[in-house]
Amino acid sequence: MKKLINDPADVVADALRGMAAAHPDLRVDHENRVVFRGDAPRQGKVGLVSGGGSGHEPMHAGFVGLGMLDAACAGEVFTSPVPDQVAAATRGVDGGAGVLHIVKNYTGDVMNFEMAAELAAAETDTEVVAVVTDDDVAVKDSLYTAGRRGVGVTVLVEKLAGAAAEEGRPLAEVADVARRVNAAGRSMGMALTSCTVPAAGRPTFDLPDDEMEIGIGIHGEPGRRRVPLAPAREVAEMLLEPVLSDLDMTGGDGVIAFVNGMGGTPLIELYLMYAEVVAVLEKAGIGVARNLVGSYMTSLDMAGCSVTLLKADDELLRLWDAPVRTPSLRWGV
Amino acid sequence: MKKLINDPADVVADALRGMAAAHPDLRVDHENRVVFRGDAPRQGKVGLVSGGGSGHEPMHAGFVGLGMLDAACAGEVFTSPVPDQVAAATRGVDGGAGVLHIVKNYTGDVMNFEMAAELAAAETDTEVVAVVTDDDVAVKDSLYTAGRRGVGVTVLVEKLAGAAAEEGRPLAEVADVARRVNAAGRSMGMALTSCTVPAAGRPTFDLPDDEMEIGIGIHGEPGRRRVPLAPAREVAEMLLEPVLSDLDMTGGDGVIAFVNGMGGTPLIELYLMYAEVVAVLEKAGIGVARNLVGSYMTSLDMAGCSVTLLKADDELLRLWDAPVRTPSLRWGV
Repeated sequence: MKKLINDPADVVADALRGMAAAHPDLRVDHENRVVFRGDAPRQGKVGLVSGGGSGHEPMHAGFVGLGMLDAACAGEVFTSPVPDQVAAATRGVDGGAGVLHIVKNYTGDVMNFEMAAELAAAETDTEVVAVVTDDDVAVKDSLYTAGRRGVGVTVLVEKLAGAAAEEGRPLAEVADVARRVNAAGRSMGMALTSCTVPAAGRPTFDLPDDEMEIGIGIHGEPGRRRVPLAPAREVAEMLLEPVLSDLDMTGGDGVIAFVNGMGGTPLIELYLMYAEVVAVLEKAGIGVARNLVGSYMTSLDMAGCSVTLLKADDELLRLWDAPVRTPSLRWGV
Repeated sequence: MKKLINDPADVVADALRGMAAAHPDLRVDHENRVVFRGDAPRQGKVGLVSGGGSGHEPMHAGFVGLGMLDAACAGEVFTSPVPDQVAAATRGVDGGAGVLHIVKNYTGDVMNFEMAAELAAAETDTEVVAVVTDDDVAVKDSLYTAGRRGVGVTVLVEKLAGAAAEEGRPLAEVADVARRVNAAGRSMGMALTSCTVPAAGRPTFDLPDDEMEIGIGIHGEPGRRRVPLAPAREVAEMLLEPVLSDLDMTGGDGVIAFVNGMGGTPLIELYLMYAEVVAVLEKAGIGVARNLVGSYMTSLDMAGCSVTLLKADDELLRLWDAPVRTPSLRWGV
């Protein structure tokens, strides 16, 4: 295993020390492993909490800040945060307007966020609404998941619901934006290589030198099929065909197209993939209104990418353009 | 070779198509492979041009925009841009106040930028000043280089000289900022794995599973030594010891500390490395005034990192904080 780490058991704590040092405008609760906005809780503003297993950086802690999350909980690598962590995050962002939990659809995450919501309701009478993302069209039911997995759309939900909360909108409306984004978004990923979990020390799965896996999950869960390596333009078709056949993306105000790297893939390849994604969308008569290209939801050191499309409307585009200031997504301020 | 590409011969052209599609506020000259600010040339503003071989993304095209570069030339992978490209970039950013060339110290780059400057002077009477970066303390003279290699400080030069140019300062002053930054900056890198050049199809060098290379260059040029894999805290010491013994970084207004990923290393490891870098600096009595953590100057899919320290002063910190709006570095706007 070749990684820049100390003891595999300390990876999450060590990385959080680095985040705290790099971003003095955030506040890191090292005991609970929660990264907060420096000014949390904001009175009268809906608080946004997300989190999940570590190993997907910058998701979620890299999205804490103005216009996006108020707190992110870091579980162990590929392991749900425990209810106490999420409860601490929820308490810490409660400014009296309620708290939205943004939860990727993995059984452990859903269960632990639910328990945390119950704790928060009992302890501090905090109103919590949870929105579960499940945008991965690759497989229904999977390792760790009943139903579809929550993947790339989670980043878009955090941005768009975050912008709605920043406008001072009430919890029901912010939750509605989050649900609407999840309903209008679809994703599909692929891997060229496996990831390696530090504590395991060896690749999660074997993938021969001449094959790739289409429909992979962000923890190395099996995808739809293994196929021979193919040019990027064919990969783009393999990823977009199931997305576009699952939801009609034509019409409206175009899509937000998100090409995401899995951690081990450099930016030059992601831009190259984005060119191929645009070519497929043009052929399908789908306009791109906004885009995001980069490694925003990774799977440790896995090489590969995912494509997320979100069917947008005027309001979502306005929320997309709203200012955001987080370690990993920043514009307008 | 596992990469998201089409034909290896088309990698640069394909990636530039993706950049153009993703960033409509930039203007891409596909024939010359130059990425321009959409509003170039800006009358009365010193134009900043950089460039080099591709494979280091987001450097340089990802740094084109307000407060940083006016144009970036993309050579073939790990190959200098040709003089005609650089001349086209120089002409295209000439707003009457002269043009600064920011050149990494590789023999081909230095020569081709010089020839381009002569072309620009002859054709359009454009005044060009070149600043060559040579911050890599690892080795003196190397594959492709006489003297020290230009690495991470180049990103900082582009930011800081870019901010000076944005203030409307004359060419001599902008060039002086660039030289001052290069003189006050030092870098050292390391690799856990080799990169793979698409046209070659196989790793550039062999590195056993239990070894890493300290002092590596950004094209896989040999470093100082191969050593057994070690914890991140020892890697931080190995990278910082030669940096700190080359230039006294104590005193002044602290340093700008830049932990850079080589392309195949995920962000969680870079934050972890940053924590270790800060620990070493604290022990050495060196304060960190600003920081940058991420993959900004890569070496294709190489796993590894580099550390750059820049001894800062009031003026440099002010230029660092100035607004920047580029695809890969953005704040204040």
